Amino acid sequence: MFKILPLKGGLENIKGFYFQGVNSGLKPNNEPDLGFIRSDEEVDVEALFTTNRFQAAPIKHFQKYPKGFKTNFLLLNSKNANAMTGEKGIEDIEELFETLKEKFPNIKNPIMSSTGVIGYRLNKEKIKKAFDKFSFQTRDSDSIARAIMTTDSFKKEMALEVRLSNNESFKIAAICKGAGMINPAMATMLCFILTDANIPREDMRELLKKHIETTFNAISVDGDTSTNDTVMLLANKIASYDKEAFSEALRVLMQNLALMIVKDGEGANKVVAFEVKGAKNKKEAKKIAKALSNSLLVKTAIFGEDPNWGRIASTIGASGCECDEEKLRIYYDNLLIYGEEKREMDEETEKKAFEIMKKDSFKIVCDLQIGDGNFTAYGCDLSYEYVKINADYRT
Amino acid sequence: MFKILPLKGGLENIKGFYFQGVNSGLKPNNEPDLGFIRSDEEVDVEALFTTNRFQAAPIKHFQKYPKGFKTNFLLLNSKNANAMTGEKGIEDIEELFETLKEKFPNIKNPIMSSTGVIGYRLNKEKIKKAFDKFSFQTRDSDSIARAIMTTDSFKKEMALEVRLSNNESFKIAAICKGAGMINPAMATMLCFILTDANIPREDMRELLKKHIETTFNAISVDGDTSTNDTVMLLANKIASYDKEAFSEALRVLMQNLALMIVKDGEGANKVVAFEVKGAKNKKEAKKIAKALSNSLLVKTAIFGEDPNWGRIASTIGASGCECDEEKLRIYYDNLLIYGEEKREMDEETEKKAFEIMKKDSFKIVCDLQIGDGNFTAYGCDLSYEYVKINADYRT
Repeated sequence: MFKILPLKGGLENIKGFYFQGVNSGLKPNNEPDLGFIRSDEEVDVEALFTTNRFQAAPIKHFQKYPKGFKTNFLLLNSKNANAMTGEKGIEDIEELFETLKEKFPNIKNPIMSSTGVIGYRLNKEKIKKAFDKFSFQTRDSDSIARAIMTTDSFKKEMALEVRLSNNESFKIAAICKGAGMINPAMATMLCFILTDANIPREDMRELLKKHIETTFNAISVDGDTSTNDTVMLLANKIASYDKEAFSEALRVLMQNLALMIVKDGEGANKVVAFEVKGAKNKKEAKKIAKALSNSLLVKTAIFGEDPNWGRIASTIGASGCECDEEKLRIYYDNLLIYGEEKREMDEETEKKAFEIMKKDSFKIVCDLQIGDGNFTAYGCDLSYEYVKINADYRT
Repeated sequence: MFKILPLKGGLENIKGFYFQGVNSGLKPNNEPDLGFIRSDEEVDVEALFTTNRFQAAPIKHFQKYPKGFKTNFLLLNSKNANAMTGEKGIEDIEELFETLKEKFPNIKNPIMSSTGVIGYRLNKEKIKKAFDKFSFQTRDSDSIARAIMTTDSFKKEMALEVRLSNNESFKIAAICKGAGMINPAMATMLCFILTDANIPREDMRELLKKHIETTFNAISVDGDTSTNDTVMLLANKIASYDKEAFSEALRVLMQNLALMIVKDGEGANKVVAFEVKGAKNKKEAKKIAKALSNSLLVKTAIFGEDPNWGRIASTIGASGCECDEEKLRIYYDNLLIYGEEKREMDEETEKKAFEIMKKDSFKIVCDLQIGDGNFTAYGCDLSYEYVKINADYRT
């Protein structure tokens, strides 16, 4: 038995870690665009990365360390993804850490994580100069959460305490960013999870992998998968641990952060859960749920608050998965829209459907009644604002 | 040796066929929304249909006829797709043809083709009433081309004459519609091709299949595949024939109509050819080209005239296909944007790239330098207007 309690704030809930965001001159108004997360001791680190074949330089740099390495320093930046920069991109990271060592000598196996525009070398001069602003004993959770934001409209952080039945406890907290280029393999997002739990190394990887599928891999803003996606877990092991409890807390944390990303989807006004049931198998359920959350016609109908279920049916039919128009049922929340005797939308149903679609978040349930494959994907509407943000991104 | 000559107008170039569009009360301003194409004699008909599993009622009705059947009557309507209407949707078509027979007794194996909103039964009363407006000796190419338009902003028709070296000739002409829900398996589109060529039945199917891949299946407006997609070829065989010449004329016709659809993509301002070269094989080249033409981030960058090649690289990397950042080259038209020594965009290249992106149509060439797989897909930008059209479609 265990209890999961929400905590106020973010990373500051985890002892033994230090963090700070500063401005290196890339973001206006002195907004933080560079920062660090460090710990006194070297800590276990496990990460899952993008499936994009063009992995960014910081990911390649991370992977050069031997398996099971420990680190005590994580450098973060926004505005530049350091992707498609080749060997030079990795050398830039190494050069930055050489400079950093002069200011902070006990740095060990440092790692970096970047987000921003693809195809430009890091501005090493600006970054090095900004190192002077680092104050290594600072625990400023707000500034580091803001330092990784790009088109995000709000910072994303969450912290949980887990109390075990023996009165022992541990904590887990995370910051993340992501608002566009959000899809399958983890959404274009960075997520850094800190914990004081005494978690074995093998559980770190196992549980990250277990929960990524239904959380970060189940959300979609625009169907694009980035070069930099990273979910990283750092554990300093100074508190207690229980696998079942940690697993559940990690799931809750990742699920909530994933939904924050969809909610902050570029230009998005609504979060929609696409719940697919009764597909031939789980793989087909996932394929359909992802297809629905990625369909431009479905996304624009949601933006227009138009209960046009035909676009949902058409997307299911186009998915290549097994389906039967006589068996299919479509619900908005609990309202049956299509199926059984209901083939055409009557006025009353349309009115009720319209009320549901006016809400900030609702469910679209598709029951195929063919097998036992279930999967829920999370998506958002497509608005004028999305087009505006992405047509103007670099300017 | 043969010559292909463009002809003015559309279907009126093919003798022996009659066609007309009328208003049944569904479109405003007396715009045609119902029509027919018929011929004096029963003619060979071959069609390719959507891969969407929820095929519309008219497609199921067509498929009830035995293979190799001939027809002399094709009924067309817009505003209602007659899709997801079950057995009732097919019965509605049969009832319409029963009524039509009273007015036009020598109708034989009639077929229907529909486009519009999914999930509503046809308004049989209005359609039957409009049958009174049909004048079966009419050859009004303009009204039938307009009768199948939905969100199309212009009618799409084309006619070609093929002159053979023996001074014989034949003609081929088509109308088509399509402006949204355009993707893979043929785009949401209807296309009706008439010819007087003396083409053998087996060539009709073979050549349609051959050319669909690089024409209608290579275009994308929004990545959605509809329930009603149809490309149909009707041949009355009263003129000459040469397989090689017909094949080339059919390719030219389908290619041009496909590009008209992209040009008329909902809210689209630009037509872009995504030319993928040097992929591992043709399958991977196609997968990458289609991914590029469907990527929201690429489409919005094109709309914003932002030469942000990072989004192109990222989409290639996310496609799951084999690629190598050291080998990849990206060109806008003939301008090298990325590859070889060019890793970062310099000011001069950016300026030139910007000039290219300002054009109404241009090429984005991605040379992977891995194998010999080539494929070109055609897409368009994603604008505010697309969102508006699709958020408001039913209202």
